[in-house]
Amino acid sequence: MLLTELTSITGIDLETTFRALQVIVGPERVSITQADRLQHACDQSSHAEHLPDLVVWPQTTTEVSAILAYANTVRLPVTAWGAGTSLEGNPVPVQGGIVLDFQRMNQILAVHAADFQVTVQPGMLYKDMNKTLARHGLFFAPDPGANASIGGMVANNAAGIRTVKHGATRDNVLALEVVLANGEVLRTGARSVKQSAGYDLTHLFVGSEGTLGIVTEATLKLAPLPEHFSAVIAAFPTVEIAAEVVFAIIGSGLEPTALELLDSQALTVLNSEADFDLTVAPTLFMEFSGASEASLAEELVLVEAICREHDVQSFQAGIGREARNRLWQARHRFFETSQRYYRGYAYLLTDVAVPISQFPALVAAANQIMARLNCQGTIIGHAGDGNLHTAIFFPPGDDEARAHAAQVNDHLVERALALGGTCTGEHGVGLGKQKYMLAEHGPVALNLMRQLKATLDPNGILNPGKVLAW
Amino acid sequence: MLLTELTSITGIDLETTFRALQVIVGPERVSITQADRLQHACDQSSHAEHLPDLVVWPQTTTEVSAILAYANTVRLPVTAWGAGTSLEGNPVPVQGGIVLDFQRMNQILAVHAADFQVTVQPGMLYKDMNKTLARHGLFFAPDPGANASIGGMVANNAAGIRTVKHGATRDNVLALEVVLANGEVLRTGARSVKQSAGYDLTHLFVGSEGTLGIVTEATLKLAPLPEHFSAVIAAFPTVEIAAEVVFAIIGSGLEPTALELLDSQALTVLNSEADFDLTVAPTLFMEFSGASEASLAEELVLVEAICREHDVQSFQAGIGREARNRLWQARHRFFETSQRYYRGYAYLLTDVAVPISQFPALVAAANQIMARLNCQGTIIGHAGDGNLHTAIFFPPGDDEARAHAAQVNDHLVERALALGGTCTGEHGVGLGKQKYMLAEHGPVALNLMRQLKATLDPNGILNPGKVLAW
Repeated sequence: MLLTELTSITGIDLETTFRALQVIVGPERVSITQADRLQHACDQSSHAEHLPDLVVWPQTTTEVSAILAYANTVRLPVTAWGAGTSLEGNPVPVQGGIVLDFQRMNQILAVHAADFQVTVQPGMLYKDMNKTLARHGLFFAPDPGANASIGGMVANNAAGIRTVKHGATRDNVLALEVVLANGEVLRTGARSVKQSAGYDLTHLFVGSEGTLGIVTEATLKLAPLPEHFSAVIAAFPTVEIAAEVVFAIIGSGLEPTALELLDSQALTVLNSEADFDLTVAPTLFMEFSGASEASLAEELVLVEAICREHDVQSFQAGIGREARNRLWQARHRFFETSQRYYRGYAYLLTDVAVPISQFPALVAAANQIMARLNCQGTIIGHAGDGNLHTAIFFPPGDDEARAHAAQVNDHLVERALALGGTCTGEHGVGLGKQKYMLAEHGPVALNLMRQLKATLDPNGILNPGKVLAW
Repeated sequence: MLLTELTSITGIDLETTFRALQVIVGPERVSITQADRLQHACDQSSHAEHLPDLVVWPQTTTEVSAILAYANTVRLPVTAWGAGTSLEGNPVPVQGGIVLDFQRMNQILAVHAADFQVTVQPGMLYKDMNKTLARHGLFFAPDPGANASIGGMVANNAAGIRTVKHGATRDNVLALEVVLANGEVLRTGARSVKQSAGYDLTHLFVGSEGTLGIVTEATLKLAPLPEHFSAVIAAFPTVEIAAEVVFAIIGSGLEPTALELLDSQALTVLNSEADFDLTVAPTLFMEFSGASEASLAEELVLVEAICREHDVQSFQAGIGREARNRLWQARHRFFETSQRYYRGYAYLLTDVAVPISQFPALVAAANQIMARLNCQGTIIGHAGDGNLHTAIFFPPGDDEARAHAAQVNDHLVERALALGGTCTGEHGVGLGKQKYMLAEHGPVALNLMRQLKATLDPNGILNPGKVLAW
């Protein structure tokens, strides 16, 4: 494309911007091609595409700093991009401008093995990082399923099946390097696990979805890879009973490393692929780890006793490493499997969380509304966290079914808030959850969030149109 | 005292203020007596006393809101007061004004037993709360030793011997009610464990030492009381070896519920009281808990093996409940025991934290500098966290010894920062650590902290003179 043909979505002087960015990163790492822009126009959600004006692949913090300083001066939107695996439109550049793709800042900068820590660049992919860390007997525990980037996980406070034991991303970030809107480079936190020296700047940025600053380095807490573990699959008569088992297990002092609930339809979907022949019933997938086989065996005796007290219909424990890996792979690929099962359908994913005591009520509400509105799909949850997802599938052209899916989302958020919970447990606010922010947080909190945004990004250049419509 | 005799430290119109506060809380709960003011002039640190002008005991959030709205209008300092057990001058009202004593807002508002949560008022005392929670088989794990208030623990991000397993206060706060400087009442967070809905306001307030807002309610994560546990006392030839054992234990996948290091002198102090006859050597106090006696026994076999590989000189495991309670009581009372051991002496407590790999280097540095400057005192640490305390005792009139103690503090902070750590692991910044903030965080972070303070407390009424000299 000739520069003279450039037209900007946002009305910026694209030719000048293009040249200015080329001066910063060189001619190779800035693009205005349609192909590159299209690759950064949507994430894995169903939110509409928006093209950025330009895509830049920075390689250093200095470059990111220079880009932000420039963009701040000319009031150009800048949206950070990791792996594009988010589920709520979080990195979709709805106001165009620059997308900063961190693909080329994807290095592990230091493995602090003795401290169970790693320092990485934001473009590092979660699964790739854990492959390297496995050599040190360590892993980063918040497991979003997808091969997300670390920058994206920090931005969205991502979480997953290991969060019941190890916490969300928020709980596992010790220190950050962040480039502020004006290009200043901020360092937050320390490598000591304990820190009480002033305001907690680190956690102001975790979960802020790139609207307050752009993370260029993160130091993360790691966990030792368990040497001994056992997966358990237990099927129950109802989801309510399965949820009671969740409380009983956690209350007993047992500490599962995973505790997932799947409804009957989810089991049907799972059985449709891979080599599974699981009972089609509300099911808990659990995993326990221990320092020795003997201590683990003791724990499993307790788990089985609790399940038997709760009318377990089938109980498989002591599943070996190979079968366990297959089980979790299937769970990780569940969304993709669902997409194939409901081939050609559009979808809407929900992501609410409640206190675990309210989890059965939430699951019941999800069942009822999906049945009432004749929605097709599955209910799964990180039960130990009280985090529920429904995936509702519908023919793309069926506006009524689409409206029903939206109604399920509204209803579940309303129920979750009434039950003391949140409109998003792990996917973030992005585009889809902004409409619930006032109901969840109230006007005082929203006003404070707006003040923080204005303090940190006075010109509103950082991922504009996200979290709150500023 | 007659109102006409009132004179203010800060030059405020004390008579008008006194009457205004009486209108808000009634005549009984506002005081200008010397006795009441003296009781709120210093904490348990060695920082100088400062009298507030008035002391108020609010009973409701509405009262706190009205007081702050008034104080903000007339630009009057307001400092929240919990139990006065802090160790860095955190609630000392250095600019006079109002102290808000939360003694009468000390109720448990709700125990959410099935969710392992409690909602409490800030004046609730830690130990009293845990006594009540024990009936539910639960406890709040961050254990500062002292009977601190929950409000104070939230303000300082307090931590202690259980933090190695359960985290600091920061890691265990789900939701807050906070009165902002202008009297607005903010609610942050939710009761769901997972939350990704917008900016993390909760953690902006945790550790802010009452300089950004005043907490009037906190919802805390609890842990189940372990049914089975065992204390271990293990003595080693050197602190370096003891610290290596710390890594080995955590790296093995064992999860101690406490992992404390004490130097030889600390053992001498401990032996001076109570019914102890412990080996005077660098020692680890450890505790492990398990879901069953059998799984616990398995873990202890592993612990002993690790200790034996590291030249353990004496190893006592399987200590019963009574002896275990005595051990932890002694550890909790260690500071008071030290004060009696060094009767009549003044003291300076240090509180640095480093990545655990650097803990031996830090301990060695502490040993060396204390010996070189001929300081008397002890070295103890929450070793599993890399958090080191030294307590240096000196005759109150001995200016040289006092200067040496200050030098030890400076030196340890410098070493901790060089080792990737922090000037304060759990005591907070208060008055004593402000001078290290620039070195620890750098100018960009300090500037951002100042901007946050200006955004949240534009008139600078909240605990002025703390964290950063604004």
